[in-house]
Amino acid sequence: METINRLESEVRGYVRGFPTVFTTAKGNRMTDENGDVYLDFFGGAGALNYGHNDEVMKKALLDYIQGDNICHGLDMATAEKVNFLETFEEVIMKPRGMDYKIQFPGPTGTNAVEAALKLARKVKGRSGVLCFTDGYHGMTLGALAVTGNSAKRGGAGVDLQDTHSLPFCDYFRDGRDTAADLEYMLKDGSSGLEKPAAVILETVQGEGGINVASDEWLREIERICREHDMLLIVDDIQAGVGRTGPFFSFEPSGIKPDIITVSKSLSGFGLPLAITMIRPDLDIWEPGEHNGTFRGNNHAFVTAVAAINHYWRDDAFEKEILRKGEHMRERLNEIVDRHPGFNAEVRGRGMFIGVDCEIAEIADEIAAECFNRKLLLETAGPRDSVIKFMQAVNTSDADIDEGLDIVADAVQAVLDKHGLTQGAA
Amino acid sequence: METINRLESEVRGYVRGFPTVFTTAKGNRMTDENGDVYLDFFGGAGALNYGHNDEVMKKALLDYIQGDNICHGLDMATAEKVNFLETFEEVIMKPRGMDYKIQFPGPTGTNAVEAALKLARKVKGRSGVLCFTDGYHGMTLGALAVTGNSAKRGGAGVDLQDTHSLPFCDYFRDGRDTAADLEYMLKDGSSGLEKPAAVILETVQGEGGINVASDEWLREIERICREHDMLLIVDDIQAGVGRTGPFFSFEPSGIKPDIITVSKSLSGFGLPLAITMIRPDLDIWEPGEHNGTFRGNNHAFVTAVAAINHYWRDDAFEKEILRKGEHMRERLNEIVDRHPGFNAEVRGRGMFIGVDCEIAEIADEIAAECFNRKLLLETAGPRDSVIKFMQAVNTSDADIDEGLDIVADAVQAVLDKHGLTQGAA
Amino acid sequence: METINRLESEVRGYVRGFPTVFTTAKGNRMTDENGDVYLDFFGGAGALNYGHNDEVMKKALLDYIQGDNICHGLDMATAEKVNFLETFEEVIMKPRGMDYKIQFPGPTGTNAVEAALKLARKVKGRSGVLCFTDGYHGMTLGALAVTGNSAKRGGAGVDLQDTHSLPFCDYFRDGRDTAADLEYMLKDGSSGLEKPAAVILETVQGEGGINVASDEWLREIERICREHDMLLIVDDIQAGVGRTGPFFSFEPSGIKPDIITVSKSLSGFGLPLAITMIRPDLDIWEPGEHNGTFRGNNHAFVTAVAAINHYWRDDAFEKEILRKGEHMRERLNEIVDRHPGFNAEVRGRGMFIGVDCEIAEIADEIAAECFNRKLLLETAGPRDSVIKFMQAVNTSDADIDEGLDIVADAVQAVLDKHGLTQGAA
Amino acid sequence: METINRLESEVRGYVRGFPTVFTTAKGNRMTDENGDVYLDFFGGAGALNYGHNDEVMKKALLDYIQGDNICHGLDMATAEKVNFLETFEEVIMKPRGMDYKIQFPGPTGTNAVEAALKLARKVKGRSGVLCFTDGYHGMTLGALAVTGNSAKRGGAGVDLQDTHSLPFCDYFRDGRDTAADLEYMLKDGSSGLEKPAAVILETVQGEGGINVASDEWLREIERICREHDMLLIVDDIQAGVGRTGPFFSFEPSGIKPDIITVSKSLSGFGLPLAITMIRPDLDIWEPGEHNGTFRGNNHAFVTAVAAINHYWRDDAFEKEILRKGEHMRERLNEIVDRHPGFNAEVRGRGMFIGVDCEIAEIADEIAAECFNRKLLLETAGPRDSVIKFMQAVNTSDADIDEGLDIVADAVQAVLDKHGLTQGAA
Repeated sequence: METINRLESEVRGYVRGFPTVFTTAKGNRMTDENGDVYLDFFGGAGALNYGHNDEVMKKALLDYIQGDNICHGLDMATAEKVNFLETFEEVIMKPRGMDYKIQFPGPTGTNAVEAALKLARKVKGRSGVLCFTDGYHGMTLGALAVTGNSAKRGGAGVDLQDTHSLPFCDYFRDGRDTAADLEYMLKDGSSGLEKPAAVILETVQGEGGINVASDEWLREIERICREHDMLLIVDDIQAGVGRTGPFFSFEPSGIKPDIITVSKSLSGFGLPLAITMIRPDLDIWEPGEHNGTFRGNNHAFVTAVAAINHYWRDDAFEKEILRKGEHMRERLNEIVDRHPGFNAEVRGRGMFIGVDCEIAEIADEIAAECFNRKLLLETAGPRDSVIKFMQAVNTSDADIDEGLDIVADAVQAVLDKHGLTQGAA
Repeated sequence: METINRLESEVRGYVRGFPTVFTTAKGNRMTDENGDVYLDFFGGAGALNYGHNDEVMKKALLDYIQGDNICHGLDMATAEKVNFLETFEEVIMKPRGMDYKIQFPGPTGTNAVEAALKLARKVKGRSGVLCFTDGYHGMTLGALAVTGNSAKRGGAGVDLQDTHSLPFCDYFRDGRDTAADLEYMLKDGSSGLEKPAAVILETVQGEGGINVASDEWLREIERICREHDMLLIVDDIQAGVGRTGPFFSFEPSGIKPDIITVSKSLSGFGLPLAITMIRPDLDIWEPGEHNGTFRGNNHAFVTAVAAINHYWRDDAFEKEILRKGEHMRERLNEIVDRHPGFNAEVRGRGMFIGVDCEIAEIADEIAAECFNRKLLLETAGPRDSVIKFMQAVNTSDADIDEGLDIVADAVQAVLDKHGLTQGAA
Repeated sequence: METINRLESEVRGYVRGFPTVFTTAKGNRMTDENGDVYLDFFGGAGALNYGHNDEVMKKALLDYIQGDNICHGLDMATAEKVNFLETFEEVIMKPRGMDYKIQFPGPTGTNAVEAALKLARKVKGRSGVLCFTDGYHGMTLGALAVTGNSAKRGGAGVDLQDTHSLPFCDYFRDGRDTAADLEYMLKDGSSGLEKPAAVILETVQGEGGINVASDEWLREIERICREHDMLLIVDDIQAGVGRTGPFFSFEPSGIKPDIITVSKSLSGFGLPLAITMIRPDLDIWEPGEHNGTFRGNNHAFVTAVAAINHYWRDDAFEKEILRKGEHMRERLNEIVDRHPGFNAEVRGRGMFIGVDCEIAEIADEIAAECFNRKLLLETAGPRDSVIKFMQAVNTSDADIDEGLDIVADAVQAVLDKHGLTQGAA
Repeated sequence: METINRLESEVRGYVRGFPTVFTTAKGNRMTDENGDVYLDFFGGAGALNYGHNDEVMKKALLDYIQGDNICHGLDMATAEKVNFLETFEEVIMKPRGMDYKIQFPGPTGTNAVEAALKLARKVKGRSGVLCFTDGYHGMTLGALAVTGNSAKRGGAGVDLQDTHSLPFCDYFRDGRDTAADLEYMLKDGSSGLEKPAAVILETVQGEGGINVASDEWLREIERICREHDMLLIVDDIQAGVGRTGPFFSFEPSGIKPDIITVSKSLSGFGLPLAITMIRPDLDIWEPGEHNGTFRGNNHAFVTAVAAINHYWRDDAFEKEILRKGEHMRERLNEIVDRHPGFNAEVRGRGMFIGVDCEIAEIADEIAAECFNRKLLLETAGPRDSVIKFMQAVNTSDADIDEGLDIVADAVQAVLDKHGLTQGAA
């Protein structure tokens, strides 16, 4: 750790919550340099939906490298890119009736969001983009301007422009219809809300604290976008690739986004990969208008293809995720109900689950107690009050229960410490 | 190619100039699905300074993956990150008397630039950044605002703000001192040039057409930055990691940038990796103020460590690059001199070399003729008039000469076609 | 009119609704070149609260000019400026317990708003300003950015920045507490609403359609400003100088704005004059930091002093305005109630009154019918659905009734035309 | 003065250099409350080109007011507006072969500039505007963004956007062709200078320090605007209305601006009035797209008509101004030449004249010595090093010489104080 503290910038974050040096990892377990083994409910913040070093992908990747296949190819055609595109088309898009062009905008989520915003503005010839409270879309300037977090926005050092943040689904927790409010403002020519090029949203806000948009709300937003000639961009970087059950988080709602961003678990193995999916008639990019050195990460194509083929050729995986998610929410609700002083709310869809603590501070304390008990998980939300469960979606039932037992212990320990075990908050 | 054309976005670029599907690659050779072998003087646009699938790095990577070591770890501490930091400190920084904190800002160059700009603005509390004509720094909104190319800027769809572009070294090709002009404007309180937070520059502009800043100019810019309380950011993404000879392109000038961005060939193997090097007293980031999912690409750490250890433990490699670069420039000048109708200028430093054609169109035609002769290279510059040589810097003398022979043939063929072989342009 | 049509820009507006050439005017009556006399319920859009060519001010102005007193003096000290400042202090500020420094920011309302925004941002070191739906603050770029009307915003030709528009009091017409919503977003560090320097508002929105903020809402906004360290700017350009009864429109609410802008009827005579009133401890301007050629319009000082001395030395004038305003609203409500098909709402405070027509088109038709009957008035609001009553606040009871009789006739005529006289809309 | 210091904002400027309360003024003389009479070479910073309280205009204004003619009429048609438009067309535009539509954008120069910029951006559909070092165009946000002075820009409190400042004619004082440099950058697609909507310039920069653009440079800029599809906006607010001799300052160059802004001395009497002159085919404003309360200042129309009729019906006045200007420059050059230690440069055109002091501080000292000797004048330029002569252009020869005698004395006194009378600086 001395090296990290001496040489790595103060900006480092997770290492502060998980202060140990990790060496190996397999599935849901990470091992540190002391040989301690941690159960991983953090899951690479959504990049490890299939766990660490999955054997199927690992074998495919080793073979690929062994064979001196192309590693780096910018956006040249490679056999593995072709393989990825065809697999993605056949296994993911076709069965869902989807027709999109695929852009490789650079290997991270924020690259995908930047490309989506640029294209939307180019298509509509308008500069504004609507985004939502508690939304998170990335750290580069364009993506940051549609991100709600004020600490991260403050890091920009410039005024973030051309975006307007509006209340997300159930933002005020009072049942009001924030989609109707949005349309009311759009219809009013003096609202100060100029007609934007696009709306960007997450169906379940991850960094924002596991805030779930209802299917009705998503459909209303889609309808408003159609009626007001705005594009609908769904950022499925964290909620996608099975986190909520289906491959795309928006499938249950039936909406058809104009642009979709996917990254994080797309490569399956934790390798950098991102795509921006574009409705074909909107694909008006000029050649090279958006470029970048690491657009085609062929190693990531290899593992992505292996993952897609292994997990997504039928709906068994989706059903398992839904079943496990329900089980988790049940057990978490039991934990919450057990402690009247806890005052927490269990939220989420599929295995994208959070426990929001009314007393924000105890969330971080619970996460710290979990770490002491060799369970990794993080907190989220504007107050860091939400304990976030992001373990691999292929985690076994036994591992889930093992993790939740630790959580139950940690909750008990923290509530005891605060004298909240028996009474009300 | 049908799959690419059907499924990949119109934004794809290089595949248009190199219209074939590549399968394997080794060193300086790429093989396509037809078994055709190409000599690669394109070099991943600077990401493959050591060539494809270098055996030393490959072995290290295979061992790492085989051993279930950590692949994805966000910015948690991993043994391999520690290894990278220590190796970079010992082999690269210490011998050069450099003391910097390392930020992992996301795995691509544009991430590194965004982080640099954000930090500079935060440190100085000012929003403006000076950049230079023909500069190229990336495609995300912050980096795009310091990039000169109007086609790429136009893709933003919003007004790019908080930057001011000024003439680069010898921009007007008339010997005037553009650094002095810059200082003149800074000293004039009514120039309309508000005091910026920082100046960002490339010592040799790659995408801009292999424009070389003189050491004197760099030192003047550094002095001006010091006197006017501005940070100096050197974007060494394309010129660094040996492209011009030394590890950092600015070493011969003796300047000490406040912030340095490195990416492209940093991983050595073509894997996504980027760092932002920060003068320690400027490292005022809050934890997590800039984050991202793929900051710590451990596979890339593995190959980067192997590359650094193998190539940079003494100055032999640098000397070889300088020798080969000189040889290339000599041969290219011979080609130019041989054809009075060519009217081209050979520019560059080390193995970062361009041939600027007065008649812009023939540059692309020469590149196409090279492709037909199984040599990959690209053009650059605002008019795409510069034939760019970016082959691996460990290319053998024989391969260099083989490539240059092809170039000589291609030049001859194009000049013949235009009737320029004998006469003046 | 031929000259106007030939030589004046297409941007001209009111002349289109009132297509005749006016020559003389007195009190509430304007005479055109044909000798036709019009009753003026338009009132210079709020600049003629005391009517045309008031004899008291006229005499003072004639004497001043006759005596070769200073006409133009930039911001040099002149006897008349001193006189204005002392009169404004003694008659307006002191009795109301107000203590403000006076800035002469240029002679129009938009100058005053620009100065207010600049100072607020300078004081707080933050760039954002919150504004409200349907707000109107001026046409220069800074003021336009806090103005809601999209047609006018569209005229900017650039992205309007650094402002955020939020729902005004009762914006959604459903009784919800928009001040509470605003505070909810301010308290949420991830709302995307960065802490602004200031909030700017009109207590009664004129151009926005005579939308009245409740006293409770104003006090809540003031409290929120205090708690969140934001300045409160009240733009009293249209609602001030007696339009709602008291000199300042916000007096009944008891709030104490940090900055107040006053213009329009300030000079009393229709001459250009504007002031920005600044809480003394916020007056951190550097000398000349904001300047302008026509800051001190001495002719306007002369008439302003005459008006203030004549009308505002006791509360009789305020009471008269309130009495007349109540009478107007009663009669307008009678007109509305008489016609079930009218479906209109009477809104306003003091003599700042609007009649909002559910069927927007008939508002302009009623205004046109009034013009035919020699009554001038205009429409306002995002749909131009609000008939706006802005006659001089010293209009006699008889003139008010004469005007309202014409309005009643015009309403009847328009409803007849649309077959709305007897039935529901 | 106590009232001013107590009640007027700290932003006040000229009153600090001229610390006395003025009461009356006539022609070139101002009288303060002590009865002291000052010779006025300050001239309302360009708003009093005909001096104070000119009898011809005064009589016309008194008659107008006496007759209860329209004072305030927004942009309704009034007999006096018609009179102004016809007179301006007949006496000013027609003899010069000019054909422009007239916009009344609000009564001050900055309003006229804002309207010009908005329209240019609307016409071209581009947001950028090129402006020049040391330019000055106004204090509202749009105009401020094309103003060079960093102290004034800093007052904005937001990042000023969508403009790019380039070197003015002879900016570097080394004879280089800055128009050619501008075109070089426009032609280079990677210069970072996006194609702007317009170029805005003053032919002689007043606040910038009396910097004179050559006719050749102006013609080059016009040609570049034509070739690159940019509008040419000439801001003739300070240099126009005879200050340089002809009514418009650009007449000698022969250029035909697309948009012209005029204000300051346009009303003749010091009353607020501004116009934006628009090439007819560019007049694509929507009705009311830019509005404002004091657009039609009828009192100012009255005096403007009187001034135009009295002074501009033939070229005698222009010739007189040119003759007097030449005389002034001769005498000022004598004063400069008399003192080798002075090291000053006399610059200007017509009666728009400045003396630029190498030692900046002595300029303000000379102005202060002049004030002590009852002569008003101010300094300008980024260093406040330029003594600015802006007396009425109808000043008699005797008054000019009287003023210059005082200047000579003041120069002598200041140089004596600094021991610069005999030797070199």
